[in-house]
Amino acid sequence: MSDKPPQQAQSFQRRIPEDDDRERLVCDACGFIQYENPKIVVGSVVTCGEKLLLCRRAIEPREGYWTLPAGYMELHETPEQGAAREAWEEARAAIEIEQLLSIYSIPRISQVQMIFRARLPKPDFSAGPESREVALFSWDEIPWDEIAFPTVHWALHHWRQSREQEGFPPFINPEEGL
Amino acid sequence: MSDKPPQQAQSFQRRIPEDDDRERLVCDACGFIQYENPKIVVGSVVTCGEKLLLCRRAIEPREGYWTLPAGYMELHETPEQGAAREAWEEARAAIEIEQLLSIYSIPRISQVQMIFRARLPKPDFSAGPESREVALFSWDEIPWDEIAFPTVHWALHHWRQSREQEGFPPFINPEEGL
Repeated sequence: MSDKPPQQAQSFQRRIPEDDDRERLVCDACGFIQYENPKIVVGSVVTCGEKLLLCRRAIEPREGYWTLPAGYMELHETPEQGAAREAWEEARAAIEIEQLLSIYSIPRISQVQMIFRARLPKPDFSAGPESREVALFSWDEIPWDEIAFPTVHWALHHWRQSREQEGFPPFINPEEGL
Repeated sequence: MSDKPPQQAQSFQRRIPEDDDRERLVCDACGFIQYENPKIVVGSVVTCGEKLLLCRRAIEPREGYWTLPAGYMELHETPEQGAAREAWEEARAAIEIEQLLSIYSIPRISQVQMIFRARLPKPDFSAGPESREVALFSWDEIPWDEIAFPTVHWALHHWRQSREQEGFPPFINPEEGL
């Protein structure tokens, strides 16, 4: 059984492999198992001076709502590289990652979100293909009623709570959970 | 395009979907994309009194070498639940997770490892199917020459470095990397 995914068209079925205790996607021909595991979302709370960078989504889900630059981590990158890539893809922002701010776990949708604190040295940014617009907001200007996801609320508040601190344990889901 | 994986045998090909910039596994029939992303390994440095719990691997890779109870996070669990599940599966140990110790990133094999500090209240444990044996070691008894993976070395040393501390930022890969 290879540990590499198949390189050509193959046919999979969902069944419990020998020596396992749950259903997996198994290749009919060679027995290769396409494991499905939780996915990592990497993103950043980005500051530029005193302001925060947010992206207005041009795609579903939550099209038209504001979010942090964030997205699925890709193969062969580090979480920090992934977060910087997402800021570039969604906001054309060349950010500098500072430190891990929070880790949110959303088992219902099998996601683990790693959110970093980052800075944008100069206010150079523009909307990437998945953003309708990108803008800087002071804390009081944030469009709280138009935030895309609960984790964006959490991350912004955790950023504010810790902005004078360095070297702290990452925040996790608030008590009220999801 | 559904966001659910296929429920029946299907045929996939590796190609760059429209609006994407890298190859994905795409279903020939329905266009479903089986995204492949980095996987999360969850595990623990488990103490029982003054001793540390290690498992001697009964499976490849590194069969016969000693490791922490750790493995791939499964769908619909939190990292903490996954780490506790792995300790049960590999060492029949009912551990109590204390806090996040470290996050190691291994982009070469697209892994992010989340290692917790945990305790085993009573020395009740036994080898699960993937372990040849399970044992408790004082620091000086650890079989350093028979440790399975570099990240096990890192986690043990990071545990020792921080064992009097609480509420610290997670350790990351040491400078020498991998």
